[in-house]
Parts: sequence; structure tokens; C-alpha cells
Amino acid sequence: MQAIVNISLKNGVLDSQGKAVHHALDALKFEGVKNVRIGKQIVLNLETNDEAKAREEVTQMCEALLANTVIEEYTIELVK
Amino acid sequence: MQAIVNISLKNGVLDSQGKAVHHALDALKFEGVKNVRIGKQIVLNLETNDEAKAREEVTQMCEALLANTVIEEYTIELVK
Repeated sequence: MQAIVNISLKNGVLDSQGKAVHHALDALKFEGVKNVRIGKQIVLNLETNDEAKAREEVTQMCEALLANTVIEEYTIELVK
Repeated sequence: MQAIVNISLKNGVLDSQGKAVHHALDALKFEGVKNVRIGKQIVLNLETNDEAKAREEVTQMCEALLANTVIEEYTIELVK
């Protein structure tokens, strides 16, 4: 099964990459953008098809390596 | 409304960041991972609430700035 992990900066943490993209969109005359936030999307193909096991394993991966939980939050979506 | 843009490398393009993460997961004894691909998730808050207009505008943003369409593909999801 496939696990899709979305990692984004917590609210209140300055997103300098997002600010730069917002600025560049303004420079290209794209108006009507209020805010830009940039995160990561990590797609893992797993051998297991057990949803509970997959969720537990991916949560451990996020805590140990994938996300910096001081400044980032993550969501896990499982797809068969 | 909010636009969520997921940008990932096209199939066949080497994802060196994904390979590095896969290697690190192996080193941490997370077994059962077949493949890792890493992309970007860009969340745009837009002033408009017109879905058709938003989709057209965000597509233009992707083509002009957000994605490198030679090696990347993108999906756009709109949330009210």
C-alpha cells in the first residue's frame, strides 16, 4: 500500500520559502493571492497491506526522520 | 478559497532526495519500504471564490513559476 505524508510548517512559524514564492507571484502580476505556504509531500510505497501496521510504522518514520516536530506538523494518508 | 498544489517529479526522473530518505530509513531499520518519492505541496489562499477562475489562475501559476514542467507534474485541488 501507499502512504502519502504531507509535512508543513506549524502555524506561526515563518515560511520564508512561501514568502519568496508569494513575492515572485506578485512580480508576475498574479494578484488575488493572500498567502502561500510550502510544505513537503513524501510518497512511500510499503510492502504491507495492513492499514493499522502501516499507519503505526509511518508515524514512527515521521517522528524519527521525516518531520521536524518542533516546527513541523504532518498528516498521513493511506491508499490501497 | 484555498488551492492545494502537489508537485512531484515525473516517473522516470531520478529522485535523489527520495533515494537518500529511503537509504536513511533503511539505516534506521525501517524495513518494508519499497520506494520513496518526495515532492512539494504548495498551499495558496486565494481571494476569489470562483472555482473555474481559481483553477485557471493556479494552472497559469504552475506553468509560469511553481512547477518545472520538463521534469515535474502537478495536481491542483480546490477547497472552499
